[in-house]
Amino acid sequence: MLGFECDYMRGACPAVLQKLVDTNMDQTPGYGADPYCESAADRIRQACGAPDALVYFLTGGTQVNATVMYAVLRHCQGVISPVTGHINHHESGAVEATGHKVIALPGHDGKLGTQDVRKYIAAYWADENYAHIVEPGMVYITHPTELGTLYTLDELKELSAVCREYRIPLYLDGARLAYAIASDKTDITLKDIASLCDIFYIGGTKCGALFGEALVIPSPELTGNIFSVIKQRGAMLAKGRLLGAQFDTLFTDGLYERNGRNAIRTAGMLAEGLIAKGYAFSVSPQTNQLFVIMDNTRIDALRKSVSFSVWEHLDEKRSVIRLVTDWATAETDIEALLDLF
Amino acid sequence: MLGFECDYMRGACPAVLQKLVDTNMDQTPGYGADPYCESAADRIRQACGAPDALVYFLTGGTQVNATVMYAVLRHCQGVISPVTGHINHHESGAVEATGHKVIALPGHDGKLGTQDVRKYIAAYWADENYAHIVEPGMVYITHPTELGTLYTLDELKELSAVCREYRIPLYLDGARLAYAIASDKTDITLKDIASLCDIFYIGGTKCGALFGEALVIPSPELTGNIFSVIKQRGAMLAKGRLLGAQFDTLFTDGLYERNGRNAIRTAGMLAEGLIAKGYAFSVSPQTNQLFVIMDNTRIDALRKSVSFSVWEHLDEKRSVIRLVTDWATAETDIEALLDLF
Amino acid sequence: MLGFECDYMRGACPAVLQKLVDTNMDQTPGYGADPYCESAADRIRQACGAPDALVYFLTGGTQVNATVMYAVLRHCQGVISPVTGHINHHESGAVEATGHKVIALPGHDGKLGTQDVRKYIAAYWADENYAHIVEPGMVYITHPTELGTLYTLDELKELSAVCREYRIPLYLDGARLAYAIASDKTDITLKDIASLCDIFYIGGTKCGALFGEALVIPSPELTGNIFSVIKQRGAMLAKGRLLGAQFDTLFTDGLYERNGRNAIRTAGMLAEGLIAKGYAFSVSPQTNQLFVIMDNTRIDALRKSVSFSVWEHLDEKRSVIRLVTDWATAETDIEALLDLF
Amino acid sequence: MLGFECDYMRGACPAVLQKLVDTNMDQTPGYGADPYCESAADRIRQACGAPDALVYFLTGGTQVNATVMYAVLRHCQGVISPVTGHINHHESGAVEATGHKVIALPGHDGKLGTQDVRKYIAAYWADENYAHIVEPGMVYITHPTELGTLYTLDELKELSAVCREYRIPLYLDGARLAYAIASDKTDITLKDIASLCDIFYIGGTKCGALFGEALVIPSPELTGNIFSVIKQRGAMLAKGRLLGAQFDTLFTDGLYERNGRNAIRTAGMLAEGLIAKGYAFSVSPQTNQLFVIMDNTRIDALRKSVSFSVWEHLDEKRSVIRLVTDWATAETDIEALLDLF
Repeated sequence: MLGFECDYMRGACPAVLQKLVDTNMDQTPGYGADPYCESAADRIRQACGAPDALVYFLTGGTQVNATVMYAVLRHCQGVISPVTGHINHHESGAVEATGHKVIALPGHDGKLGTQDVRKYIAAYWADENYAHIVEPGMVYITHPTELGTLYTLDELKELSAVCREYRIPLYLDGARLAYAIASDKTDITLKDIASLCDIFYIGGTKCGALFGEALVIPSPELTGNIFSVIKQRGAMLAKGRLLGAQFDTLFTDGLYERNGRNAIRTAGMLAEGLIAKGYAFSVSPQTNQLFVIMDNTRIDALRKSVSFSVWEHLDEKRSVIRLVTDWATAETDIEALLDLF
Repeated sequence: MLGFECDYMRGACPAVLQKLVDTNMDQTPGYGADPYCESAADRIRQACGAPDALVYFLTGGTQVNATVMYAVLRHCQGVISPVTGHINHHESGAVEATGHKVIALPGHDGKLGTQDVRKYIAAYWADENYAHIVEPGMVYITHPTELGTLYTLDELKELSAVCREYRIPLYLDGARLAYAIASDKTDITLKDIASLCDIFYIGGTKCGALFGEALVIPSPELTGNIFSVIKQRGAMLAKGRLLGAQFDTLFTDGLYERNGRNAIRTAGMLAEGLIAKGYAFSVSPQTNQLFVIMDNTRIDALRKSVSFSVWEHLDEKRSVIRLVTDWATAETDIEALLDLF
Repeated sequence: MLGFECDYMRGACPAVLQKLVDTNMDQTPGYGADPYCESAADRIRQACGAPDALVYFLTGGTQVNATVMYAVLRHCQGVISPVTGHINHHESGAVEATGHKVIALPGHDGKLGTQDVRKYIAAYWADENYAHIVEPGMVYITHPTELGTLYTLDELKELSAVCREYRIPLYLDGARLAYAIASDKTDITLKDIASLCDIFYIGGTKCGALFGEALVIPSPELTGNIFSVIKQRGAMLAKGRLLGAQFDTLFTDGLYERNGRNAIRTAGMLAEGLIAKGYAFSVSPQTNQLFVIMDNTRIDALRKSVSFSVWEHLDEKRSVIRLVTDWATAETDIEALLDLF
Repeated sequence: MLGFECDYMRGACPAVLQKLVDTNMDQTPGYGADPYCESAADRIRQACGAPDALVYFLTGGTQVNATVMYAVLRHCQGVISPVTGHINHHESGAVEATGHKVIALPGHDGKLGTQDVRKYIAAYWADENYAHIVEPGMVYITHPTELGTLYTLDELKELSAVCREYRIPLYLDGARLAYAIASDKTDITLKDIASLCDIFYIGGTKCGALFGEALVIPSPELTGNIFSVIKQRGAMLAKGRLLGAQFDTLFTDGLYERNGRNAIRTAGMLAEGLIAKGYAFSVSPQTNQLFVIMDNTRIDALRKSVSFSVWEHLDEKRSVIRLVTDWATAETDIEALLDLF
């Protein structure tokens, strides 16, 4: 059985696992007050070019998103998200459960359009009844998006400029950030993200860590007592050092990007192979997720040998399936998969 | 430096770590729908004698507690806890953040008294203004308690009987449950807990797991859509199988109890040694936490070689320190520690 | 200055005011446990043909809506509303602040389409990841809608049938219900509403009361301890009898409908007059709100003598203004207003 | 039947009622943007000697309390209250439902002790684990207290000084404030309250208004978008002018204090009469609430002719009953009541 269902189906990349083994019997204080977390935070600050950034380690993406909304949004504020944004559709209402509206704007292949955002915010402040309406208090994007697409540097700069004009924090959900910065189709670096976004997280779970995400806040004044907030939300790991050790490893000698590049390279092979076989994509491939248009009968046959997800039903005969590569996908996996098409 | 500060200072016990290594490259579906979780849940159901129990795996204790309160309590209900209960004092208001009051009753060495509980609940229902008052909707206990003490089977039966008389669920926080069931001073088994409590969790983080807790709900009708609630609270690990693999190992061949027994045995050695040296305890030792009364000058000296926490200041000259053993504490550690007293 | 801005610009209709004066020095118990509330509830139950209905009196519409969502929705559930629904746009995020998503579906002149609702709910349950998505747990409609339009009896029956098929409560916000049931364009009675909806409120504030709304729950099993919930939300008036006395009067000798008919009659006069003068409406008038298309220059002139609200900017030259009549609007007011057009 | 159960059993004092009648047919904008609210706020600012204060009108005390906690407390903060504080016991958990813990300290005849508060706050900040504990973020007092007692000016100054030393807002719940400032046993004026407290409300419902409370925030920087927060909580009356008209009247020509004095004078007569008949009080009378110790058999007899509440059962034979006077209590009522003792 070939596994192309998601990028969180395996454990950790070898170096991360080894680090956990090597440090297993060390005794450290809890809740992130240990040398591994300190070192990992330093490496991340350096990689981001953000020497004053706050860095916290949490265990999962929904947890980070909900904690950020809860900590940063003020009462009566909501967060602007593309309709396809993870917080809008796939987190069981986690953001609303913190008391805040997700203001869903139409997406463009999963991306928010700067003009849509500007228009919405301007209209809000121009409405004479604005105090009766949820105030846009944050802008949420994913990079790469849920459709595997990437913002360009110009797009990110424009979005950031709108947010700063209106003093609204821009938050980037980087669950798959390794696959964004490693893409040959991007002109955005980690440093760009740290300078253009007000808060973001660097995904570990899907990018080679056993589990965990690194929350980065370049502008520390944005959040108050966030340590307590993380604790209160049950998002504070007692053995915080498990996360520190992993991110310390991922940000040593470029491992995080190397993990990303493997997925990009193998996804590229797969895309080429599928094109060669006459397949088309519903969204042009940019990172490690491919959205392939297929006949339903072919899909059923494929299921016998491959795990993947059906993304969307196009019509009675055809659907879109999603194939995902990751840090561990081997070229032989791609070859085996292509043989089945 | 000797570490006796807490029981979550190390990684995982060897068998658990090995299991994570062995299964690292397996590909499994996410969110607990994998064979390891299934097997672990089966073993736990069997160990609990609760064939119909729901079993979920979460990453930490505060997370479990807040999720349970949120999922089970109805609006305007609160949870009865001893004053020293973890939810009342050490979770940054996590329960209140879910909208529910912690109704703190005086503790007896960390334990709730059945008569106190009965009196409180009866008085609530006898109050003509009860609809204006927070309704007691759950009873929360820890076993062992924050003071290392243990309920007797009779005490637990009585408490359970009061709860069932008033149809209030009894919830047991078992963060250190391994150390309760392995104690030579207990007459309570895991099966007793599963039959007398309506919901409880089996602690992993402090009992030999790398991280994680197993939430057990013997009466499935108690909670509705708890899967979605766990997801919404950010308490659902994408790679749920990491938790399943660990608990599968802990509940194979009695490892969980063996982990417990090591801590109990070494704590017993330590207690005997301290008594022999003339030390007294503020609470009579029953599990793996010892609360030792010491002169402040001696405490300062001890700090140079041992990590521990100061629990309480008794007067100007004396304080209580807490020493904690765990699944990994060696007899040589105890000997080395005793030499310092 | 002529006031056509809204239907809550005046105090109470004469009979309601007189009742408050007459009963002012009576001494009654608080929180709704008084004879006026009892009598009012009885009259409402009779008018609704719902002898077992629970009836509660609250002070305002946003308060009722948020209390209902909070009391009825389970965790991880959201409420389906048309995009133009009051809860979606004009309550400062009150529903989300109770932890629940407003699932906004496109409206049809302010009304929810049964097919849209059915399609959404069916798709939810067909999604293999439904447990990660907010569950549709209530359907919210206003009648008349925010655009003054009315459901037909057939439409309401269909919507109710879908809700009951999926066991989802149908909630009707009747802030302006007097103007719905008094319209000559409706075939829906109060009894129809009580039999087809699972929960609704009868608006007082906009329909001749000094203030207050009557929440009606024909199926008492829908909510648990709603008295306590109302108290907890600060929505329980200590002098509940003020609300009871008002609704007792409104539901004596058909006053509530008479209040409605005055607004309908005067709105009809106004609509005819405007049509005669060549004006058009953005939505066909059905109740007491008229949405008139006007040149912006004419709007500015009108402002000097009339209070009204500008609803929408159509293009650079034209906008839609809203004119609202109420229980007190006099024919002479309409004549004076028409003279200004 | 004589009514001494509470001070919210009647409607409005005559002048307030007349004002509502006189202004009934005026047409004004909604949500407090009317001339009555403006005038009332001005009069209150003047009476408080607080020219920059924000003034908002809400409909009830629990609503004000919960709105203030929600608006002012930051995440992970709680509010210090005496055990007997209204928020701690009689609001169905309204504060906790906003996500915040009520930190209950022992009361002294219903009052918070400055030393208790100082000790608690100092201990919090001295605890090395403070980030895991709910932070004291507000101090809540009632004046007069639930037991009818009064802070002295010195006590209020000391409490205020502690709060300001730790930068924690001091909030005064003045549900019965008229009866505090009119007492012959007080040395605290409304201006003292406005200068020593950071936020407080002037009770209307129990002090001669038909309904409503005036929230006063002398330091406007304390709350952000509180207008929207009030709206979101359903605490914003559409016909805000009803509240404005009432408070405008209450703060014209000293009516609010006159209302208070009537209750104080008649309570004084009652206390003297009861003492003369040999009765004792469980709390020394200071305002309009008397807590009288009585034999249970006498209580049952009294019930036939008087409404009152039983406050506390002292032992098998005796209980404490509460008798409350108000702005409307007549001397003849007192005489009739005393005849029954």
